[in-house]
Amino acid sequence: MKFPRTYTLKEIAQITENEYVGSDDFPVKGINEIHVVEPGDVVFVDHPKYFDKALNSAATVVLINKNVKCPEGKALLISDDPFRDFNKLSVFFKPFQSSSHSISSTAIIGNNTIIQPNTFIGNNVTIGDNCLIHPNVSIYDNCIIGNNVTIHAGTVLGSDAFYYKNRDTGFDKLISCGRVVIKDNVDIGANCTIDKGVTGDTTIGEGTKLDNLIQIAHDTVIGKKCLIASLTAVAGCTIIEDEVTIWGQCGIVSGITIGKKAVLMAQSGVSKSIEGGKVYWGSPVTELRNRQRELIAIKKLPELLKKMK
Amino acid sequence: MKFPRTYTLKEIAQITENEYVGSDDFPVKGINEIHVVEPGDVVFVDHPKYFDKALNSAATVVLINKNVKCPEGKALLISDDPFRDFNKLSVFFKPFQSSSHSISSTAIIGNNTIIQPNTFIGNNVTIGDNCLIHPNVSIYDNCIIGNNVTIHAGTVLGSDAFYYKNRDTGFDKLISCGRVVIKDNVDIGANCTIDKGVTGDTTIGEGTKLDNLIQIAHDTVIGKKCLIASLTAVAGCTIIEDEVTIWGQCGIVSGITIGKKAVLMAQSGVSKSIEGGKVYWGSPVTELRNRQRELIAIKKLPELLKKMK
Amino acid sequence: MKFPRTYTLKEIAQITENEYVGSDDFPVKGINEIHVVEPGDVVFVDHPKYFDKALNSAATVVLINKNVKCPEGKALLISDDPFRDFNKLSVFFKPFQSSSHSISSTAIIGNNTIIQPNTFIGNNVTIGDNCLIHPNVSIYDNCIIGNNVTIHAGTVLGSDAFYYKNRDTGFDKLISCGRVVIKDNVDIGANCTIDKGVTGDTTIGEGTKLDNLIQIAHDTVIGKKCLIASLTAVAGCTIIEDEVTIWGQCGIVSGITIGKKAVLMAQSGVSKSIEGGKVYWGSPVTELRNRQRELIAIKKLPELLKKMK
Repeated sequence: MKFPRTYTLKEIAQITENEYVGSDDFPVKGINEIHVVEPGDVVFVDHPKYFDKALNSAATVVLINKNVKCPEGKALLISDDPFRDFNKLSVFFKPFQSSSHSISSTAIIGNNTIIQPNTFIGNNVTIGDNCLIHPNVSIYDNCIIGNNVTIHAGTVLGSDAFYYKNRDTGFDKLISCGRVVIKDNVDIGANCTIDKGVTGDTTIGEGTKLDNLIQIAHDTVIGKKCLIASLTAVAGCTIIEDEVTIWGQCGIVSGITIGKKAVLMAQSGVSKSIEGGKVYWGSPVTELRNRQRELIAIKKLPELLKKMK
Repeated sequence: MKFPRTYTLKEIAQITENEYVGSDDFPVKGINEIHVVEPGDVVFVDHPKYFDKALNSAATVVLINKNVKCPEGKALLISDDPFRDFNKLSVFFKPFQSSSHSISSTAIIGNNTIIQPNTFIGNNVTIGDNCLIHPNVSIYDNCIIGNNVTIHAGTVLGSDAFYYKNRDTGFDKLISCGRVVIKDNVDIGANCTIDKGVTGDTTIGEGTKLDNLIQIAHDTVIGKKCLIASLTAVAGCTIIEDEVTIWGQCGIVSGITIGKKAVLMAQSGVSKSIEGGKVYWGSPVTELRNRQRELIAIKKLPELLKKMK
Repeated sequence: MKFPRTYTLKEIAQITENEYVGSDDFPVKGINEIHVVEPGDVVFVDHPKYFDKALNSAATVVLINKNVKCPEGKALLISDDPFRDFNKLSVFFKPFQSSSHSISSTAIIGNNTIIQPNTFIGNNVTIGDNCLIHPNVSIYDNCIIGNNVTIHAGTVLGSDAFYYKNRDTGFDKLISCGRVVIKDNVDIGANCTIDKGVTGDTTIGEGTKLDNLIQIAHDTVIGKKCLIASLTAVAGCTIIEDEVTIWGQCGIVSGITIGKKAVLMAQSGVSKSIEGGKVYWGSPVTELRNRQRELIAIKKLPELLKKMK
């Protein structure tokens, strides 16, 4: 998430109420999570295990719970609770704005786009030309929808990331200030849910088609011309490359990559990155022919055990 | 889908901009997909593998991409792109009509039927007597709902078939002009999705009860007095016969038949037609007792392998 | 479900049109299902297999289809169809009330609580302070929501229990008159469905967080500080104790207990009660390490079978 203008380190430190290491006028342009940081971004880190990764990332401001040596050309915000203070920035720059109308007056809606009744369109949403948004759809603030997009009834774009810190006092939510970005020529079925990015974008690539009741979690990036069948769940921060086909009821964990033109047979479960251009099946997945061999072998197993006795 | 009146072959050829084989006044009554065609219907075929099936089907007009010998008593529409021209007919006869009100003035709603707030009812929808339609339901144009039907909140009836042709230019949608037909005494849970037929009907039979978050795809026909538990997905053009029981999170592929009184245990996956009157489990399913034997054998397998070393 | 005042046995018998055993003024305070009955409750039983359980339960009035010996200090309602007559009581005391407005005038909504557009809030709903209810949510009559609760778009609270008696004439619904109770600091994702209790409460405990597209069935009680990921289904009357973690697409059958701090890996299926403090995987679940051993063994199985030939 980029700020509306470049802030100074001093201004940011006043918002977060942190001590800082760096010049008062060190430029700060936005906040981001570690996997999408760019120069000018604040990143947060609160566990020594990840200190080096954060300090060596592209982010130039590190919100950290230890006064470590500041890397050359960077700045630090020193906090006793970086998670809490990162949330302060999200709330300051993207405060939740309630809506008094079903379609916000700040939404920009293109030519020849049809919005059916009972659909909610939040603040600062942009929808392109020739789109068809069916009834009872909910599009949260700041979502971006391209041209020639169809969204079926009951689908939700921009709900919060399911991302919590487990504290003694209960689960503390990492506040989402990212967006959902739907590219041109995408179709989304009925009653799907696509969460916004925590700070970045959850993206559905050009020409991709989603069936009904599909869950796409925060910060996941789906490529071009993918087909995803119903009741599939893709967890957060995962990359699905172009032309991937996913049949129904598959589950894909967070933070992995599904290679280009991979095919997942129905009810597969994917827990590690997999290469493109292959067909996979099972939970956890293996290549289709391996899974088929396993299934044949399992069928013979009861007889085999009987003989061995 | 039947046309509002019988058209002549010449009229239809003008709409599709095709050459044709047959008399100008050859009668054309509707369009349908191959599995539901009747005399008077146009069917389309664009792959030599399926030419014979289309030419020998009940359809009397074949929209085809080769000037083949016309069967006796039939007619041909010759097209370089039958898929595109079939879509032309769908759009001509069932153009999308946007709605300006939550409940269309052309909807017919029976006696003692309650429509709760925030529900959308499209054009030409028919709902019978003594129904209860809960809030935030979306019922697309042309759906037919019988008597004594309950539909829980958030459910969507009539979203488009998930059916695309993979072209170099991207996925091209087969336009749906069919309907959803819900028979008497059906209950449908919350946040279900039931797609319309491509040209025919997606049907939920008399007295069948659906739990929440269930996906029923295009042209699927579910029999009488079935019970289907939550998060189950039934793909397109499948037949589920009467009195079938399907427990939660099952997946059923397209184009198969589940026999009468079959029972599917939870999380089963069905990829082939199965006989009625039996209990099945697993993914892919086998009969319950076979699956139980396999599971017992698998439990013993690690120990067996250790011994064999 | 408690009656608005204490009724006499005679009054209740007039509503159900039953003969009774007990004094006319025997006090009757409510109705409940067997697993949640208290003194003063009517419970119903229509199968000899369960007569003793019902007669010996905490319920003091037993609606039964046989004139059995009445236990000391209790009363009987004698019915040829206890299921039908139990439904009569549900309908008498909690008749369905249709709503003419999106937000009922009888709903009580706390301070600083935001209700986004297109959300439905039924009669006698109570929502606490500092809640955020996103668009297109449906909250049925009588639900109780605590403080600091977030509910994302499209979620449904209070749909009917999926509970039918199989009669020759079709499935007969057990009418739900219970509630959904959401405790403080709960977050619920988008397009979830939480059914009301049949007579009791479906409860989501303090500080628990639900992801998107989750199904929680009637009378299920989820403890404090649980995390449940998307597309998980929990069937009815199940108890999930505190601090349980359930990853995506898990299925849990009815009437069992998941012990405190249990962890279910994704796509697990649980058919029996399981102890807390352990990690489980598979369908049906076993402990994680056992499942891992099985998976390794299955991988070796095709090769083993080849060697054995």
